Amino acid sequence: MPNTFVATSPVRFGDIDHAGIMYYPRLFDRMHRFFEDFWPTALGKSYHGVLEGDGIGFPLGDVKATFNRPFRFGDEMQVELTVLRLGTRSVTWKLLLSVVGDAKPRAIVRMVTPVIAMETFRATPLPDGYRAALREYLDPEGEDVAPQEPVRGEISGTQPG
Amino acid sequence: MPNTFVATSPVRFGDIDHAGIMYYPRLFDRMHRFFEDFWPTALGKSYHGVLEGDGIGFPLGDVKATFNRPFRFGDEMQVELTVLRLGTRSVTWKLLLSVVGDAKPRAIVRMVTPVIAMETFRATPLPDGYRAALREYLDPEGEDVAPQEPVRGEISGTQPG
Amino acid sequence: MPNTFVATSPVRFGDIDHAGIMYYPRLFDRMHRFFEDFWPTALGKSYHGVLEGDGIGFPLGDVKATFNRPFRFGDEMQVELTVLRLGTRSVTWKLLLSVVGDAKPRAIVRMVTPVIAMETFRATPLPDGYRAALREYLDPEGEDVAPQEPVRGEISGTQPG
Amino acid sequence: MPNTFVATSPVRFGDIDHAGIMYYPRLFDRMHRFFEDFWPTALGKSYHGVLEGDGIGFPLGDVKATFNRPFRFGDEMQVELTVLRLGTRSVTWKLLLSVVGDAKPRAIVRMVTPVIAMETFRATPLPDGYRAALREYLDPEGEDVAPQEPVRGEISGTQPG
Repeated sequence: MPNTFVATSPVRFGDIDHAGIMYYPRLFDRMHRFFEDFWPTALGKSYHGVLEGDGIGFPLGDVKATFNRPFRFGDEMQVELTVLRLGTRSVTWKLLLSVVGDAKPRAIVRMVTPVIAMETFRATPLPDGYRAALREYLDPEGEDVAPQEPVRGEISGTQPG
Repeated sequence: MPNTFVATSPVRFGDIDHAGIMYYPRLFDRMHRFFEDFWPTALGKSYHGVLEGDGIGFPLGDVKATFNRPFRFGDEMQVELTVLRLGTRSVTWKLLLSVVGDAKPRAIVRMVTPVIAMETFRATPLPDGYRAALREYLDPEGEDVAPQEPVRGEISGTQPG
Repeated sequence: MPNTFVATSPVRFGDIDHAGIMYYPRLFDRMHRFFEDFWPTALGKSYHGVLEGDGIGFPLGDVKATFNRPFRFGDEMQVELTVLRLGTRSVTWKLLLSVVGDAKPRAIVRMVTPVIAMETFRATPLPDGYRAALREYLDPEGEDVAPQEPVRGEISGTQPG
Repeated sequence: MPNTFVATSPVRFGDIDHAGIMYYPRLFDRMHRFFEDFWPTALGKSYHGVLEGDGIGFPLGDVKATFNRPFRFGDEMQVELTVLRLGTRSVTWKLLLSVVGDAKPRAIVRMVTPVIAMETFRATPLPDGYRAALREYLDPEGEDVAPQEPVRGEISGTQPG
């Protein structure tokens, strides 16, 4: 049974946009903060330590996200993060974002991050210690979830995949 | 021959992150600003007028983005925006983001936005005047571009679609 | 002896700018989040409850801030928040921002927020329950601290106050 | 008669907060962008060139800002930027932010930036070419404006200066 990294954090006053919902670029910023918080739990070192100590980074190479319902100020947001795939030089992540207590996620996100050497910004093999730590969160079955979820209205018929 | 909305804007000092490149959530914020600037050109009214005057909005329902090369402070960013599909109650957009003078885009983005009534936040048919204006930017052939582009390292083999 | 609201939160990867330090507009964003977190502790209700339940808000009317040393990715930031003055229809706040373990604050901030009715956006008297709660954090002596702090180089000679 | 750097830019959809007005940390971000745009006009080189070519920077050391009226989505914002003081190793700036067509500024801002060598992050004398260029924008009389402006409600009585 794979681990899931679970964390929560509130939607902020300044996260909202003119339409009264969380502005999606700030939702991506929040995802990055959750991603940063994942490392101490999974690997026992901060993302700062990953970048500055070990000299490797995980920039975003590819993202697919579906937004089913918006987040609003006052919501307590919850992330469930797992690993969909461990490549030689990339990691594929899944993030489910919901409001605490929700039955269904409001956003379903799949990200592919190459593994790069910070000094050269070029792809590098995922170190063994990282691979072992991330394997604990590996849930390839999770891959099925993302593309199947129905989206509002007709959008489900227009997905790329 | 379909129209392409082309606009440029500089990468800013504050867009950069700890890795020295444009932080991707701020890249999405920039895309939204380009999207706002599209409306006066395409429809002859501001996005404020779309939302407040006509009472319709285009929130993000689904996004697929591939980032091939980063943007850095001092780069002059260029967007090329077209419409991939006009649904009854949704629009699918393509954005190519490059540095002015680049031969290839650094980011390729496909967004699906439902058309909603701002008052109810529910899907609503795209008004005829909008449909006529957006049809000028319709380039269904553009759809082929997005999934085929090779991504750094092995990422191209890990795409969902 | 007045209370001080103390909270901590890490400087994030995306908080950094091209110069490698925390971008000051994001430092102000962080201050607002600390300010939001103050309310449950001080008043027993969230800032969402303050705005939506009680219909009052505290927008920024005036700010004076001195930045002595920058914050960097990996720093654990600490705020110490007190109230400098309780006016009839305004509150003056002091925030000291430091890195956990620092002897001296890196930023010293004084903010004046009018008390407004959210419905009209006009100044309104601070409700009694709020006044009682905020009085616990009132430290008028703290006012001396802000203008006296020496700033880097010659800046100390150029302050408005 | 000193020069004033004048520029405009629209308040964006994503600049708004839960209260329906421009979130003040994003107002500071906007000010920084105006500040970046000042350099090509005043000095004939970009702020990127200032930092990377000449190796000097102007971080924020001290700021005093008064916000009289909020900005809203759809407003066309205008900045008027002048120099209040040219120190040996610092510059004091004034920014007036208004909506195009307004008689009065909505925000009045005074910033002190030390001049630093980017390599050491230590104060350094303002180069002569910079001094000459900035002197064109020097308007010491402008200093009187900032502290005298009345602020909403009783706030004017609580200013530090």
